[in-house]
Amino acid sequence: MELKIISAEQFRLERATFHTNADEPHFDKSVLEIIDTVRKEGDSGIRQLTQQFDGVDVAELTVTMEEFAVASQQVEQDFVKAIRQAEENITAFHRCQVEQSWFTESQPGIVLGQKVTPIEKVGIYVPGGKASYPSTVLMNAIPAKLAGVKSISISTPPGPDGSVSPYVLVAASMLGINRIYKIGGAQAIAALAYGTETVEKVDKIVGPGNAYVARAKKWVYGDVAIDMIAGPSEICIVADETANPKFVAADLLSQAEHDEEASTYCITASPTIAKNIAFEVQHQLKEFERKDIAQASIRNKGRIIVVKNEQEAFEIVNMIAPEHLQLMINNPTDKVMNIHHAGAIFIGNYSPEPLGDYFAGPNHTLPTNGTARFSSPLGVYDFVKRSSIIHYSKKALMDASESIACLAETEGLHGHANSIRIRKENEYAK
Amino acid sequence: MELKIISAEQFRLERATFHTNADEPHFDKSVLEIIDTVRKEGDSGIRQLTQQFDGVDVAELTVTMEEFAVASQQVEQDFVKAIRQAEENITAFHRCQVEQSWFTESQPGIVLGQKVTPIEKVGIYVPGGKASYPSTVLMNAIPAKLAGVKSISISTPPGPDGSVSPYVLVAASMLGINRIYKIGGAQAIAALAYGTETVEKVDKIVGPGNAYVARAKKWVYGDVAIDMIAGPSEICIVADETANPKFVAADLLSQAEHDEEASTYCITASPTIAKNIAFEVQHQLKEFERKDIAQASIRNKGRIIVVKNEQEAFEIVNMIAPEHLQLMINNPTDKVMNIHHAGAIFIGNYSPEPLGDYFAGPNHTLPTNGTARFSSPLGVYDFVKRSSIIHYSKKALMDASESIACLAETEGLHGHANSIRIRKENEYAK
Repeated sequence: MELKIISAEQFRLERATFHTNADEPHFDKSVLEIIDTVRKEGDSGIRQLTQQFDGVDVAELTVTMEEFAVASQQVEQDFVKAIRQAEENITAFHRCQVEQSWFTESQPGIVLGQKVTPIEKVGIYVPGGKASYPSTVLMNAIPAKLAGVKSISISTPPGPDGSVSPYVLVAASMLGINRIYKIGGAQAIAALAYGTETVEKVDKIVGPGNAYVARAKKWVYGDVAIDMIAGPSEICIVADETANPKFVAADLLSQAEHDEEASTYCITASPTIAKNIAFEVQHQLKEFERKDIAQASIRNKGRIIVVKNEQEAFEIVNMIAPEHLQLMINNPTDKVMNIHHAGAIFIGNYSPEPLGDYFAGPNHTLPTNGTARFSSPLGVYDFVKRSSIIHYSKKALMDASESIACLAETEGLHGHANSIRIRKENEYAK
Repeated sequence: MELKIISAEQFRLERATFHTNADEPHFDKSVLEIIDTVRKEGDSGIRQLTQQFDGVDVAELTVTMEEFAVASQQVEQDFVKAIRQAEENITAFHRCQVEQSWFTESQPGIVLGQKVTPIEKVGIYVPGGKASYPSTVLMNAIPAKLAGVKSISISTPPGPDGSVSPYVLVAASMLGINRIYKIGGAQAIAALAYGTETVEKVDKIVGPGNAYVARAKKWVYGDVAIDMIAGPSEICIVADETANPKFVAADLLSQAEHDEEASTYCITASPTIAKNIAFEVQHQLKEFERKDIAQASIRNKGRIIVVKNEQEAFEIVNMIAPEHLQLMINNPTDKVMNIHHAGAIFIGNYSPEPLGDYFAGPNHTLPTNGTARFSSPLGVYDFVKRSSIIHYSKKALMDASESIACLAETEGLHGHANSIRIRKENEYAK
């Protein structure tokens, strides 16, 4: 069997050496050089890097209106219909996340509040190369639009002929985004972070990418905001006798086909179910389209963990803090509250991960590599920021003045105390 | 005059060369060495670094119960009263930020939702050394507690005698926090991020610190979450003829006393008001307790910007995206909607920044250095994370199956399409 079956104890031992983000110093030198080139040489630096990494000479860095027009002729009507339905679902879900500004008058003369303002300029990185990811456009752009972001641009690597996927162009166009740069890798991140003659500097960069993109995002973080540093994708399925092993195997493989580093975990209390699932994975792999990738992933990062009971299953889930969690168990909804750390929780036998990747509505940009312990799915909240509002009347400040001055002086900040006292003295001098 | 008066044009020119976060490669080598030492050598590494940087040999890395007891005898009753009132105000404001989990049934058989879960373990860095910052304890711990964080620990540098400020201890104790490490600088950040024999690894690190602390936070980011990378503090005051120049000057100086790199901006449409404020700053500086620091700050980073009108004033404010903004103008509340980027907005002549630093309730941890373009004040939202919930019934999935499979195949992910189709085939095979 390629898919290892291990005990909870074995898994805990394996996990003890787990680190969320491996340091990648061997990438850093070239990533920093790329960033430096883009900052110093702008567009011409980008052209030279695109020649070097993508093997193509891109004269015009932005997609033209003609290219949009050609793309709309190239895609199938089924695709347009499916993507419209996905857009509706994603919009409906994310609309529930829209936050309002609020104000309170806690006491007479005291108004406090929180003003919610959209981030002004956002750049979305959409991976390209061999595949095409229109769903990335939807999942990143829709929450940004709902937040009220005024300027949304996309950067995606050009193919060998210098073109961009028509599916990406059609998805972008549908959402009213027409500023698309043909730039990939760390150079795209640098261009969005610092701006060039052609590329407009943004306030926040979102979207997935390869290791270079991820590392470049870590480096520009602070100068601009980023969504997260994404690692390889992962799935964790908790299965009992109510789960169909064929379904479980197909779902594990749907994750494994992403890349060789994708992790696939299945947790069950039954050794028999474990064996059946491992057998089904082996069986389905035979005819599997992306067999080489999936097989490598299953071999390296695939585990079926046999636990004592459901409680231990949930402990292991919380230890993994998986990006995607499927509960294919009896009465799954009752058990959701046992899950403390997961990016998305798919409930029941008919809620497989691809449903969430494309269609159901919640975001497919999820915290990977155990970072669900402290991170959330991408959402409307990622595209706004808050400002505190503070208003005190003269009387309210006078009443509070001695407490404020006392705390300021405790911290040795006499100028702070003075800013309060000068108002009090002015009042009593009248 | 030490405080420069310049035109909006001059300011725009100065600003053109502004960068949010200057790279600090000369720090990086030692910061990375410190992180490495802590990861490899644990407690003994920390003791050695504490000897080196704080000049003190700390045998016991955690504050003992005796030290807490002694501290409670050392602080004044006025302080206790003031900090209790501040705690009440901060709690009341942040309670408005508490988020609920939600679920929707958009169509029969389709349940979608968002589960809000507290982050489990949080570490707060509280700066120390010459001064003592009990307000940092309140501003970081209260939102964490309201979010439901189970484990909160504090790390703060020991003084030359190996002790920790009694004010910090009393504030922590009041909030039920009794795990306090006597560790400062980058070594504290490393210990919280990776854990040692004594220090428990946390999921998120929050709190301000010097350049070493800030840079260490950038480095551990990704392995743990961080609040933000804080830069020097800044204030921006928009003033018209309704503002008392004495108040404006005192408020500018309250910011300037923080450190030599703190920025103080005042914007006014009146050259006369500009002159009066500059004069008042000069005058108040004479008797100013932290004169050397404030004077250096005013000289280097102080500007009064004379604009054409109020509209231009707001443009400049949005360009600066200040941490603290005071609107000391006629009808200030009417004009709040012109402000797109600011950490906190203080409205009117009796809402000076120190009111927000200590007392009013909104958080004093605010985005600095122009990062209010994309960041928010610290809040309860920083101490929770969200998980998406997705449940489809069999029928709902069957209805959606072709759209999902179409999108999966467009992206070349046939295993994803298969995970849907295997369920459909199973259904029709019955």
